[in-house]
Amino acid sequence: MVVSTARALYADTDQMGIVNHAVALRWFEQARAEWLRRLGHSYLQMESEGMLLPVYELQVRYHKPARYDEVVLLDAVLQKAGPVRVIFDYKILHSETKELLISGSTLHAVVGRNGRPRRLTEPMMALLTRGQQSDAESP
Amino acid sequence: MVVSTARALYADTDQMGIVNHAVALRWFEQARAEWLRRLGHSYLQMESEGMLLPVYELQVRYHKPARYDEVVLLDAVLQKAGPVRVIFDYKILHSETKELLISGSTLHAVVGRNGRPRRLTEPMMALLTRGQQSDAESP
Amino acid sequence: MVVSTARALYADTDQMGIVNHAVALRWFEQARAEWLRRLGHSYLQMESEGMLLPVYELQVRYHKPARYDEVVLLDAVLQKAGPVRVIFDYKILHSETKELLISGSTLHAVVGRNGRPRRLTEPMMALLTRGQQSDAESP
Amino acid sequence: MVVSTARALYADTDQMGIVNHAVALRWFEQARAEWLRRLGHSYLQMESEGMLLPVYELQVRYHKPARYDEVVLLDAVLQKAGPVRVIFDYKILHSETKELLISGSTLHAVVGRNGRPRRLTEPMMALLTRGQQSDAESP
Repeated sequence: MVVSTARALYADTDQMGIVNHAVALRWFEQARAEWLRRLGHSYLQMESEGMLLPVYELQVRYHKPARYDEVVLLDAVLQKAGPVRVIFDYKILHSETKELLISGSTLHAVVGRNGRPRRLTEPMMALLTRGQQSDAESP
Repeated sequence: MVVSTARALYADTDQMGIVNHAVALRWFEQARAEWLRRLGHSYLQMESEGMLLPVYELQVRYHKPARYDEVVLLDAVLQKAGPVRVIFDYKILHSETKELLISGSTLHAVVGRNGRPRRLTEPMMALLTRGQQSDAESP
Repeated sequence: MVVSTARALYADTDQMGIVNHAVALRWFEQARAEWLRRLGHSYLQMESEGMLLPVYELQVRYHKPARYDEVVLLDAVLQKAGPVRVIFDYKILHSETKELLISGSTLHAVVGRNGRPRRLTEPMMALLTRGQQSDAESP
Repeated sequence: MVVSTARALYADTDQMGIVNHAVALRWFEQARAEWLRRLGHSYLQMESEGMLLPVYELQVRYHKPARYDEVVLLDAVLQKAGPVRVIFDYKILHSETKELLISGSTLHAVVGRNGRPRRLTEPMMALLTRGQQSDAESP
């Protein structure tokens, strides 16, 4: 489900004349934040409720280069919803051609403010499950 | 094989109080550049010889957080050496405790200046093979 | 004149719990790009026409911290319009309180693809002058 | 006084084929951290003692482009030492030609963990003054 867009900055490029591969991680972060915001919640609120989601694993595949000033579509779906880990899958698409530029996933552990593992709260689990259903229903 | 070291900057941290996960990609880049330099070559020279190595796939696993001002050891080995793709494996270790903080790998395609696939030259293949042997002999 | 908005990512923060000072330069870049786009042109087109605008000087003042997930307003005006140098002034404002968070300016030289100094073309000068007038008329 | 060195990464470049101007801020940060470390202290320790030094103002001037894989010398001197503000001046030099690539300065306020202004402690003031004398004596 496309949840947001981004435009490649000059600072995002490298001397190969394309967007540096590390920028994918910024776009993934923006995508999962907007995925959550669409449900009326935010990662900021999750942190204030004592649930942090550090990245434990990630993988990225680069299909075609993104270029300076291009607008990309940020597509995120929740592959796995808690209670102690969360996995998001991403697709970054060219906004005009709809070509797939980048795909990937991030696995997050759920930890408390002290950095120790914890479980998502029931309301948070319910919210994520609702988000997953919404993913499934979207075209 | 430990090929270099790096120190985490303040700019590398995020508000979780740890090094942001994206910094791993900087450390991986530095590690593979120094892996090559140790053999008397450099990625700069490869580019001037018309061989570019854009990242096509990457995966990262975060074992323990790195923190501000810590020095990390950058360990790289060449898992696969050409002729049309190259894979590096990395380990980022705490310089004092030697604990494993981050592991991962990057797969690179070999392309020419025009961005089209090409093969590594014979001398470059020989150099990488020599580097692999050196990896195997290191403790 | 407010030309765009941006939202602070987690990756933009540092362990002081605020947006790292270096992010101002990303926001300035986005602001001047959107200033130009509003006139029906783009920096991408300028580059294709052989006019590059590397940064030669910059100054930034931090009035109040920006924080994670906050939306900021990006305000840019063209202070000096060519023919051999261009100066932009910026203001970054909190989108809700309208408080000034960051101000600054960047001075750009005009160079060709070869990196040598050159003059802006007449049509480009006319465009920038039109942009300045539009700045002056905006509230 | 040259306090450290850095090597430009590929990720530091942009499609102009040179190091992106924002990288100067990373090099300045590294330079002031190493300036302090040379005196047997560190910014990490300062933070643990409740003295933070957020950047309030900065200015940068770009004299010549830095390029991928080049090693630069990081020169920092303390222009003003507390008790409520600190100013560092920087010079970034090409390691081989010794050409000046970038110069600049950063002004830091002294704040406590709560973000409120405070004064440097007497021992910290003494340390910085000692560092300034050492700057003055270096060639």
